[in-house]
Amino acid sequence: MKLKFYFLFFILSFSSFGQVKMDSLKAPIMTSKFALALHGGAGNMVKRKFTPSEEEAYKKVMDEALVLGYSMLEKGATATDVVEAVIKVMEDSPLFNAGKGAVFSNEGMNEMDAAIMNGKDLKCGAVTNLRKVKNPISLAKEIMNNSQFVFLNGEGAEKFAKLQGIEIVDTSYFFVQKRWNEMLKIRDSSKTQLDNEGSSGAIDDLDSINKFGTVGCVVLDGYGNIAAGTSTGGITNKKFNRIGDSPLIGSGTYANNESCAVSCTGHGEDFIRLVAAHQVHSYMFFKHKNVEKAAEIVIKKELTGIGGRGGLIAIDRQGRITFQFNTTGMFRGSIDTKGEKFVAIY
Amino acid sequence: MKLKFYFLFFILSFSSFGQVKMDSLKAPIMTSKFALALHGGAGNMVKRKFTPSEEEAYKKVMDEALVLGYSMLEKGATATDVVEAVIKVMEDSPLFNAGKGAVFSNEGMNEMDAAIMNGKDLKCGAVTNLRKVKNPISLAKEIMNNSQFVFLNGEGAEKFAKLQGIEIVDTSYFFVQKRWNEMLKIRDSSKTQLDNEGSSGAIDDLDSINKFGTVGCVVLDGYGNIAAGTSTGGITNKKFNRIGDSPLIGSGTYANNESCAVSCTGHGEDFIRLVAAHQVHSYMFFKHKNVEKAAEIVIKKELTGIGGRGGLIAIDRQGRITFQFNTTGMFRGSIDTKGEKFVAIY
Repeated sequence: MKLKFYFLFFILSFSSFGQVKMDSLKAPIMTSKFALALHGGAGNMVKRKFTPSEEEAYKKVMDEALVLGYSMLEKGATATDVVEAVIKVMEDSPLFNAGKGAVFSNEGMNEMDAAIMNGKDLKCGAVTNLRKVKNPISLAKEIMNNSQFVFLNGEGAEKFAKLQGIEIVDTSYFFVQKRWNEMLKIRDSSKTQLDNEGSSGAIDDLDSINKFGTVGCVVLDGYGNIAAGTSTGGITNKKFNRIGDSPLIGSGTYANNESCAVSCTGHGEDFIRLVAAHQVHSYMFFKHKNVEKAAEIVIKKELTGIGGRGGLIAIDRQGRITFQFNTTGMFRGSIDTKGEKFVAIY
Repeated sequence: MKLKFYFLFFILSFSSFGQVKMDSLKAPIMTSKFALALHGGAGNMVKRKFTPSEEEAYKKVMDEALVLGYSMLEKGATATDVVEAVIKVMEDSPLFNAGKGAVFSNEGMNEMDAAIMNGKDLKCGAVTNLRKVKNPISLAKEIMNNSQFVFLNGEGAEKFAKLQGIEIVDTSYFFVQKRWNEMLKIRDSSKTQLDNEGSSGAIDDLDSINKFGTVGCVVLDGYGNIAAGTSTGGITNKKFNRIGDSPLIGSGTYANNESCAVSCTGHGEDFIRLVAAHQVHSYMFFKHKNVEKAAEIVIKKELTGIGGRGGLIAIDRQGRITFQFNTTGMFRGSIDTKGEKFVAIY
């Protein structure tokens, strides 16, 4: 042990000849133990809903996002940078209900929410009701890093985005014909429902991926830090500028190096009532449950117990990953600490 | 035991002669054990800041709110109805930073947030960025009771308010000269600060009551249920439609019959990072701390630990009340289960 120490001292002394690289000496030591997981929403997914080529399309985007995130981790990227990059890939795809593929509200608008949290220092950033920011997750990260505030809203958030050089696009960028048709179908069928979803056949028929198709990512980086992020277009045909759980720290998104990083997807109102992401943390922090058991209790017991539907992904500092959902499926994928890749829908 | 049962059966049978009052038979039994507490914000309050008559004015409003709430409890009102009524009294006063007395944002607007939660069933309602709703807490309660959503935002929330018959006022209703002057003073002095509060003397000089003057209420009703509510104008000179912790379930407001009801006040960003209200619950639920100890750990240890400032009030199902703050003062008051009233500032 002592010999190793002297050897290290020798190397460090040697490397300080010539130009002293203080930055690299100060930098945290990176290990090869890193991992990440993502989701693209949980919902009522049954095989008959997708053609093989549709399944392939979803898997391809998830695969691309995972490979990008993992290659960044190999090169020493931090957890929050990887969370942002992975979510951006899914935001830029029209397949997922976030960014480009965001669903339409009752008023025919896209209203996007996102949040990110760093488990290392509990710093976080969140946004709601965005209409023109190409990548909501990037604005959330910008807020986390460069604002005195945590949670910005609508036009104010977009004003901050412009000041900080975050990419703004025309609202037409978010127009996806399929999403528009989905909204019209539900809006027309629920005209008489006012503010109560009820049990209309039309809504039951809705491809619930579009209700629950939030995207999220959790990461353990090579410095032993974890982070979580979530991005969503919310619920198709939503009214009254509804805010869901995704941008709410503790409900849809949470990360803490003392326990885990969590990103949720599902019927947001129930995740808010449970403060679900923080509840997973609490089972680990206070009851010493492992990440899988903690997440399982929150989804299978507590969420199911209040009649809620959805799922979550979580990772701990050992890189253990869990996918939990009480729906028939969840778009999900991971690359674990051994480098093994996993992608699934049902 | 059996005798008592037969006696009860006899009484019930007897009362069913004539008109059967099924509703009253089903109604939960009310006890005489109820209590409530309120706060009007925590901050840097030192005696020299207030004249005796100013102190009296604050205490008078708190007293009025407490007496109203207690008389409602005596008459059998539910916890959430009392939370709403108590907070309305403070919202209607120009002294507190909520409703009528809401502070101005950097753009010279009032942007109000509120939330309410019922510990009995975890139902909750929240609003942010209101500009025209006279009593934000009433809209939060309406959402809790009559919306499929939990959290509504800005114009959408106000559209829902109109549909539901919640009182809308002209924005001029919220104009209070003192608040306007405060905003101008800070805005002018922080022109060069952009998005960083820094340590400007001008801001340090600010009467921080106006930064932290959120109002809140926690109640144990005669049916053994607890509830919490919070209402705020946010931070003077806030920008970018900032959302604080008050309307965030789990951060600024939380109630659960399994533990406690909590309302927070202070530098909201830090309460969000801690998911503070739910953290108080967690110390009780998972670690079996009493309400005072749980709240003390969160404020004195955790909030102080991350450099945050503020306070909270909490109540449990036995009617135990705690006031915790790491600032020099908090407007606060209570009437406990013995009917004893308490009102204080420092």
